[in-house]
Amino acid sequence: MKFNLTYTIQILNNTPQVIRNLLSDLPDELVHSNEGGDSWSPYDIVGHLVHGERTDWFPRTEIILSNKENKKFIPYDRFAQFEESKGKSLEDLLNEFSELRIENIHKLKNMDIDEEKLNMEGIHPEFGNVTLRELLSTWAAHDLTHIAQISRVLAKQYKEEIGPWIKYFDKLKA
Amino acid sequence: MKFNLTYTIQILNNTPQVIRNLLSDLPDELVHSNEGGDSWSPYDIVGHLVHGERTDWFPRTEIILSNKENKKFIPYDRFAQFEESKGKSLEDLLNEFSELRIENIHKLKNMDIDEEKLNMEGIHPEFGNVTLRELLSTWAAHDLTHIAQISRVLAKQYKEEIGPWIKYFDKLKA
Repeated sequence: MKFNLTYTIQILNNTPQVIRNLLSDLPDELVHSNEGGDSWSPYDIVGHLVHGERTDWFPRTEIILSNKENKKFIPYDRFAQFEESKGKSLEDLLNEFSELRIENIHKLKNMDIDEEKLNMEGIHPEFGNVTLRELLSTWAAHDLTHIAQISRVLAKQYKEEIGPWIKYFDKLKA
Repeated sequence: MKFNLTYTIQILNNTPQVIRNLLSDLPDELVHSNEGGDSWSPYDIVGHLVHGERTDWFPRTEIILSNKENKKFIPYDRFAQFEESKGKSLEDLLNEFSELRIENIHKLKNMDIDEEKLNMEGIHPEFGNVTLRELLSTWAAHDLTHIAQISRVLAKQYKEEIGPWIKYFDKLKA
């Protein structure tokens, strides 16, 4: 698919409500369940999205579009949520995520992003030069893969209870 | 996780709204995109959920709890949606799915399902004897895996546009 800013912002716009509904009225037993070992629970994932909203996606957009000489991104901490979410309920995190996302979309829309700006670059700590188009695409894809992850974590809690049907659910076996 | 009817019904209850939000205001280009070959698009998946709602999950629940001598399930047609969805918009299918799901949950709640009923059995065309507990668990897990699938199909449309970030997205490579 060719990149389209409107669709991409629409995906970003949909995510908080999707996750809120996916976890709506589910018990702590499910919200804090994971896929074993140090894999993430739905609660951990929402905390990760909150942190990304604060420190990753939009701040990197600003760096790319800035006049700064040094457009190097600050490395992203994929484990920050384990500290930052402490003492917060899922509801707290969902509210925080929604509010930050609304604010970021609002600022994004005010940046008059056109083809020229989409081609501007920043410097990723691992990949080197990346364009704004690639960053915004990754932001949307990142949302979607975490929605898939939350759904899979919840589904996996049923892997014993579905009995012989496990045969049809390859993704739940691991 | 030990099976819990209330949580399971809550998952079934959440699904229509999750999918509606996930596809909210997305263009046909995304709604009809797939993972290549004869894989399913989000539109196909919603059609499949509508068909399941009509002919699979609840009808099988009724067979298990009935007094019929023959509790054999009717084999499920995994491809029925390609005929049945013809001429329908995504909005039509989402509305149909929501309405059928509300109705099925309502009927389910009126069946006074207890431990004894959860242990009752029907005959699956491939697996033979299966319990109501297994059927209801599979119904919820099936919802969740299709939500994950829709999210993955959408994310995959970005696999070129994310550039070097593909390295972090194993699930989008295939």
